[in-house]
Amino acid sequence: MTTTQQQGPETTATDHRGLGVLDHRECLRRIASTPIGRIAFHDAGETVILPVNHVVDGSSIAFRARWDSVLASAVNQTSVAFEVDEFDALEGTGWSVLVRGVASTVYDEETSRRFEDRLGDQWGEQPEGTFWTSIRPDEVSGREMKATRGECGCC
Amino acid sequence: MTTTQQQGPETTATDHRGLGVLDHRECLRRIASTPIGRIAFHDAGETVILPVNHVVDGSSIAFRARWDSVLASAVNQTSVAFEVDEFDALEGTGWSVLVRGVASTVYDEETSRRFEDRLGDQWGEQPEGTFWTSIRPDEVSGREMKATRGECGCC
Repeated sequence: MTTTQQQGPETTATDHRGLGVLDHRECLRRIASTPIGRIAFHDAGETVILPVNHVVDGSSIAFRARWDSVLASAVNQTSVAFEVDEFDALEGTGWSVLVRGVASTVYDEETSRRFEDRLGDQWGEQPEGTFWTSIRPDEVSGREMKATRGECGCC
Repeated sequence: MTTTQQQGPETTATDHRGLGVLDHRECLRRIASTPIGRIAFHDAGETVILPVNHVVDGSSIAFRARWDSVLASAVNQTSVAFEVDEFDALEGTGWSVLVRGVASTVYDEETSRRFEDRLGDQWGEQPEGTFWTSIRPDEVSGREMKATRGECGCC
């Protein structure tokens, strides 16, 4: 498992591009505090990105999808990427967190209920017709651009 | 090319989930008006998502990356996905646009300058050390959730 783990403040180091490196705890905190994430996966040989609702479960990420979505058949036991970000174009600040790992469909009802409770009613709708997928992270990394108005900070 | 093309208002149809279907022109308009997009691609057998600065060039999307980023070696002549979205958690509204296509590194300096001019100085920083990649879309699709506080609207 390659994980950016730093002690102390949320960004204690910078990378070769001068971007702040978010530590592991801060990466998870930002994932948990961001209502929408994006899941990328392969479907029939092509890459797809879709927005998802998600929760943090320990060091794993779980996201909800509909059984009739392409996610139902495409991601179980496959390598996926999950991303959250936030940018302020006026301030020129921003950050992003990337998780790479293997996705597993959650069949256990109790676990699904726990995720549902954690997601809460901030998104209002009922969970009928949806299921949860858990990502066991192999890599969690985050970068932050604080200083200047500038690029997205990640490329 | 599978493209969601509708005439008339920006969302004239709904899909089986009740989400508004954004027409092709509206998809491109939203991509152009959103400062940060996300590119997903395969790198060494794993899926990666990274935020990028981008411009719309006719019906193509072009994004900028640094030569020392993983994007420099991973995406030329490969199938990639590009996504923009916007969600309002309080209002329960949101939309997303997904582009799938083949990426090509832009080696022509005049084209790169044109993209750079189009990107403008909203992101301030100089383009040194960066290059442009153009995506020729095979598929452009967009969905919008207008009505209720609810899920991300895409799963």
